[in-house]
Amino acid sequence: MIEPKLLKGFRDYTPEIMLPKKDIIRKLENIFEKFGFVPIDTPALEYTEILLGKAGGETEKQVYRFNDHGGRDVSLRFDLTVPLARFVSQHYNELSFPFKRYHIAPVWRGENTQKGRYREFSQCDFDILGALSIESDIEILLLIKEGMLSIEAGDFKININNRKILNSILSKEGLLDKSTDILRAIDKIYKIGIDSVLKELTESAGIKKEKAEKVLELLNLKNEQKEISGDDIFIQLEKLKTELGNDESILHLEEIFLVLKKMNIMKYYSYNPAITRGLDYYTGIVFETFVLDEKNFGSVCSGGRYDNLVGLYSKNIVSGIGASFGLDRLLSLLETKNLIEKKSSNTALIIFNLEPELKAEYFKLAQTFRSHNIKTEIYLENKKTVNQFKYAEKKDIGFILFAGKDEFEKEKFNLKNIKDGTETNSISIDEIIKIIKK
Amino acid sequence: MIEPKLLKGFRDYTPEIMLPKKDIIRKLENIFEKFGFVPIDTPALEYTEILLGKAGGETEKQVYRFNDHGGRDVSLRFDLTVPLARFVSQHYNELSFPFKRYHIAPVWRGENTQKGRYREFSQCDFDILGALSIESDIEILLLIKEGMLSIEAGDFKININNRKILNSILSKEGLLDKSTDILRAIDKIYKIGIDSVLKELTESAGIKKEKAEKVLELLNLKNEQKEISGDDIFIQLEKLKTELGNDESILHLEEIFLVLKKMNIMKYYSYNPAITRGLDYYTGIVFETFVLDEKNFGSVCSGGRYDNLVGLYSKNIVSGIGASFGLDRLLSLLETKNLIEKKSSNTALIIFNLEPELKAEYFKLAQTFRSHNIKTEIYLENKKTVNQFKYAEKKDIGFILFAGKDEFEKEKFNLKNIKDGTETNSISIDEIIKIIKK
Repeated sequence: MIEPKLLKGFRDYTPEIMLPKKDIIRKLENIFEKFGFVPIDTPALEYTEILLGKAGGETEKQVYRFNDHGGRDVSLRFDLTVPLARFVSQHYNELSFPFKRYHIAPVWRGENTQKGRYREFSQCDFDILGALSIESDIEILLLIKEGMLSIEAGDFKININNRKILNSILSKEGLLDKSTDILRAIDKIYKIGIDSVLKELTESAGIKKEKAEKVLELLNLKNEQKEISGDDIFIQLEKLKTELGNDESILHLEEIFLVLKKMNIMKYYSYNPAITRGLDYYTGIVFETFVLDEKNFGSVCSGGRYDNLVGLYSKNIVSGIGASFGLDRLLSLLETKNLIEKKSSNTALIIFNLEPELKAEYFKLAQTFRSHNIKTEIYLENKKTVNQFKYAEKKDIGFILFAGKDEFEKEKFNLKNIKDGTETNSISIDEIIKIIKK
Repeated sequence: MIEPKLLKGFRDYTPEIMLPKKDIIRKLENIFEKFGFVPIDTPALEYTEILLGKAGGETEKQVYRFNDHGGRDVSLRFDLTVPLARFVSQHYNELSFPFKRYHIAPVWRGENTQKGRYREFSQCDFDILGALSIESDIEILLLIKEGMLSIEAGDFKININNRKILNSILSKEGLLDKSTDILRAIDKIYKIGIDSVLKELTESAGIKKEKAEKVLELLNLKNEQKEISGDDIFIQLEKLKTELGNDESILHLEEIFLVLKKMNIMKYYSYNPAITRGLDYYTGIVFETFVLDEKNFGSVCSGGRYDNLVGLYSKNIVSGIGASFGLDRLLSLLETKNLIEKKSSNTALIIFNLEPELKAEYFKLAQTFRSHNIKTEIYLENKKTVNQFKYAEKKDIGFILFAGKDEFEKEKFNLKNIKDGTETNSISIDEIIKIIKK
């Protein structure tokens, strides 16, 4: 006998986890399609050369890589961005741009396992490719809002920044050559605090204290509250304009917020100059999304604009903007907030199996309820009622229908509500449907 | 630059293929849940020892196997049955039996590639575990019918057999020791014909001609039409009873058909003694499903009953019955029959981007349509109308809405039906919703 066990860092999805996961995915897919985003899928296995083309360091160490039967050097995908770049390069002539796609699929990374982190996990990416417009930036921001509303994880805020503003400030202050150091320091501000950031800028990066303070001041990072909301956003942007002139990056952010204001949805958004997103390849707006009463979970939907996705595989230039919902993080956040009903099924009604010769009647009855969109089971064995009860309870089924010969003759049945224990006897199918649908 | 290409035997799913694939999956998931089946998922990667435990020969050659970072011997799953067996053994005490699960996920096999066969493909399995009852056999047969009806691939027939009937016949004729040879020969009857089967039985297997003919006669295999439908089924089963007595396997099949008859759904089923299913592990009823005008596609949903799933990993005995929809096969069958509308999106309406200063208005308008469940896009760039048109056509969008300042002031808009070219000018949002929903 072989001991049934899983690889370290991998997990099974039992129905109790799979049902809410599928629920989130369906809600998001519904929003994606309402916005005209279309699904794609790519292989889990690709040539290592393609997947690792640009990557190095950590990624290279984490990727699952091996030689296949044909001696090809292959790897399991570690994200959905590299496959998207390969996909767009390869199908460039078939696609219509702006190409708005979503992709929900597992990826694999042989990371050191920590609590809540797995070596196989689902990503949920959506991107608009081939459009440099402000409209596509706004569309992504609207889609995140709709997605978050549909998931119902509680009040949230989408924190927006434009990385180019920092560049403009640095350019004006003659600090462009220090931009990497400065970006890295700012990225840590929530963790280490303003004083440590300042220390890092002056001591490690060798920036004059006065200049460093000026930069942090312009970015509103010296305040306790780095996030700016409502009309204060426009005041802050005016301040930046006074300093930097009509800089394109400021005007861009201002126009985004003006549209959001006109749409009366400013409460879902804020301007947060401390959001930088580590990744090199973001070049314009960047954003992170926080559920307000569970900020410690980190961002549940992040992304930004990039100048060119496909440089590695194609001479074309495909700019874009994209984001990713953190499915697993959202799932555990909902769990923590007790917003997930842990159920082992969605079954609404079970018909008890009381008399073996009534099989056809039971199945016909089930069919009737199913045709009314009621999820219905028949207990599949002729066991004692107590066993059937136990099954119904364990599967979190709402109602039990009892029927013997008499009931079928009279077409009146007995219904029990498992949760509150009430029984309603001798009622018609229509009445049962009404009660269950309530 | 790296050439963007796929591994041999792998493919991308562009939106044109992904949309109908998702459509089939959603329809089947809907049916599974209506019957109270719950979803599970298991890792793509498992210990090779677990995945290959019982397998050998072809499977072992085809599996993607390698050593991971920790030096573990791991493999990509090649089906969903072995992971199910491992899952049920490992979670035995948490599960409520009968356990009705479905699992839709990719599997990988390094097969020699042929037309229409891929090394990565989706399986769609559903099983009832831990119930030996005839009710579970019937439930699976009903579920297949509902699944096929929801997919709308055309008239179909679910061909049922019980492998035990053959055993009973062989037992009576004293041929039990030849059962493997006989099963193998019968399995080929559609391919090689009755004469060759007879030849194989007499010459290779060394069975007396008279006995061989008797077996084939009892199994109705000497007729051109091996499949038996309607009341002829009961006549055939009576004939078998006369020969074999009240054999349990015959009574079992008879009861199944009696229930189907009582339910008035006999037209979806037939008794086909030529259906054997190659796999060793089936022990009771077996079935295959054919779309009547495309039988050459082979079975689109097959399965059967097995005595014990978990023997390799557990001392428990878990019998079950299961089946699998052939997603890729169904997809190409629908394609062949022109039953799939090849579309690059499901978008119903596109709002043209005519005046840059109306961004907020366009997005608000889109939001209104989306809240009425109309899939709506805004053209995301301020380009010439001809470009916006091209995009709408390429994405197979049904309607275009034109609006400038005047239209927003009057709250009356212009709508164009792309397919028939008709335009309706100066109509309200409500009228537009009505037209699109028609």
